[in-house]
Amino acid sequence: MSLLAIGTLGYDDVETIHTQRKALLGGSATHFAVAAAPYSPVRLVSVVGQDWRAEDSALLTERGVDMTGVEHAAGKTFRWGGRYEANWNKRHTTFTELNVLETFQPKLPESFRDSRFVFLANAHPAVQMAGLAQVSSPRFVMVDTMNLWIDIARADLDALLKKVDGVILNDEEATQLTGEPNLIHAARAVLDLGPRYVILKKGEHGAFIMGQDVHFSLPAYPVTEVIDPTGAGDSFAGGFMGHLARAGEASASNLRRAMLHGTVTASFCVEGFSVEGLTGRGLDDYQARYDELRQIVSI
Amino acid sequence: MSLLAIGTLGYDDVETIHTQRKALLGGSATHFAVAAAPYSPVRLVSVVGQDWRAEDSALLTERGVDMTGVEHAAGKTFRWGGRYEANWNKRHTTFTELNVLETFQPKLPESFRDSRFVFLANAHPAVQMAGLAQVSSPRFVMVDTMNLWIDIARADLDALLKKVDGVILNDEEATQLTGEPNLIHAARAVLDLGPRYVILKKGEHGAFIMGQDVHFSLPAYPVTEVIDPTGAGDSFAGGFMGHLARAGEASASNLRRAMLHGTVTASFCVEGFSVEGLTGRGLDDYQARYDELRQIVSI
Repeated sequence: MSLLAIGTLGYDDVETIHTQRKALLGGSATHFAVAAAPYSPVRLVSVVGQDWRAEDSALLTERGVDMTGVEHAAGKTFRWGGRYEANWNKRHTTFTELNVLETFQPKLPESFRDSRFVFLANAHPAVQMAGLAQVSSPRFVMVDTMNLWIDIARADLDALLKKVDGVILNDEEATQLTGEPNLIHAARAVLDLGPRYVILKKGEHGAFIMGQDVHFSLPAYPVTEVIDPTGAGDSFAGGFMGHLARAGEASASNLRRAMLHGTVTASFCVEGFSVEGLTGRGLDDYQARYDELRQIVSI
Repeated sequence: MSLLAIGTLGYDDVETIHTQRKALLGGSATHFAVAAAPYSPVRLVSVVGQDWRAEDSALLTERGVDMTGVEHAAGKTFRWGGRYEANWNKRHTTFTELNVLETFQPKLPESFRDSRFVFLANAHPAVQMAGLAQVSSPRFVMVDTMNLWIDIARADLDALLKKVDGVILNDEEATQLTGEPNLIHAARAVLDLGPRYVILKKGEHGAFIMGQDVHFSLPAYPVTEVIDPTGAGDSFAGGFMGHLARAGEASASNLRRAMLHGTVTASFCVEGFSVEGLTGRGLDDYQARYDELRQIVSI
């Protein structure tokens, strides 16, 4: 079933303790779409600048991403730089250049408006709301956010959380949003804000989903060599939403399975820079690792 | 089936951000035995001093712990003090008084020598080895250790690891023992040292077991109010070994279930000071939380 993503396309400079890479294909929508596309073709709404590389559009198109909704604007593409410490737990943002993203307002092509599964990648919640408003009858809407919007756009975020089915947060964001240091209390408090489901990501320690008909917790896939964690969260969302769109409905059992699929796509993501850990992988690779993970967590 | 524990009985001073408690019943063997006894009666080998309280022997005996192997020596009982930071992740040892433990050599009563399931709680590996040598035909031996012994008694520890079935380590100990920061690599390197199974504990982030016929990973039980984490690791070992002793054999499926039972007993442990979170709980409570945890991790 149709899967829409509204988010960022950009170029990343990434520095790990081993190496440095510049102008890597990045952005929330990139990681989401590359992760999700093998499950279900992705309709992408975003904006790029004049420095956007045609080869990156080609990569996404070949993966099964419909780029009709990507606006080409005057100016430069969004750019971000990050540096990781040895154990990956600490990431330092070295720079953020919004560029064409600064004035971006999502405009859905007519052909995208009937999308049923929708991912609103991290953006100002008013922008996310404006994008969502153009979808005629969404079946399952997932939203991502970040500490900045919790700080400076809380009212817009609160309004949005009442309109979505699920929200995906990391542990720090959940605590910041609710004031609850205990993640179970935090998850319950997030549900009180409106969404039917909350996914709480704990990085290398896994993730859990909580909602009225589901409480499911999962360790991370045991990756033995992390190359670059950038995009792991959006890749998780891609696997999660990709599976739901493919399954066609967000039943409790599909949500549990979607958590495994998200864990699988995130694990591929961190095994390479940019989307390099994902692009060589198709549905068979996803399924093989899903089966392996399922074995590891089955009693 | 018979379950033997060789370890420490002691008194703990514990300080959390909320409160301070002094001379609490503690020690590795205490937590292990109180956690395990509802599954299977525990035979305990340890030493106490002249300040040992009769009421603490009574508590253990009532729980189903055979205290025949507890030596009463001249001098004071082992004492330990610890202080926790707000998020529980950091523990500071404020003092350690070995007292009667300093010269302790385990002496198994004749009636304990036929024990089939054996837990060697944290001690000098030569002392652990001396205890194990008195067991005639153990079926499954689990050993715990700590950073100190990895540092100063590595040869004794290496010799012991070749004699046991399983070793239980936290993430830092596993990395220290093997030089591997990645926990999957570390676990494999531990197996190369001799034991058939390694359990790697990650505190609030769960645990996994790895061995030739099993690789199983489990998140922690979602405890909403931690009171005192002291003894959580030994309580985990108690639930784990208690289940195995009750089941009678360490099959791959029993090992997986044992991981859940260990998670359950550890979760009860942290909900109270000393063994207060466990003593009010029987097999029905254990089973109810096991069922709940199983539900949370089932796909």
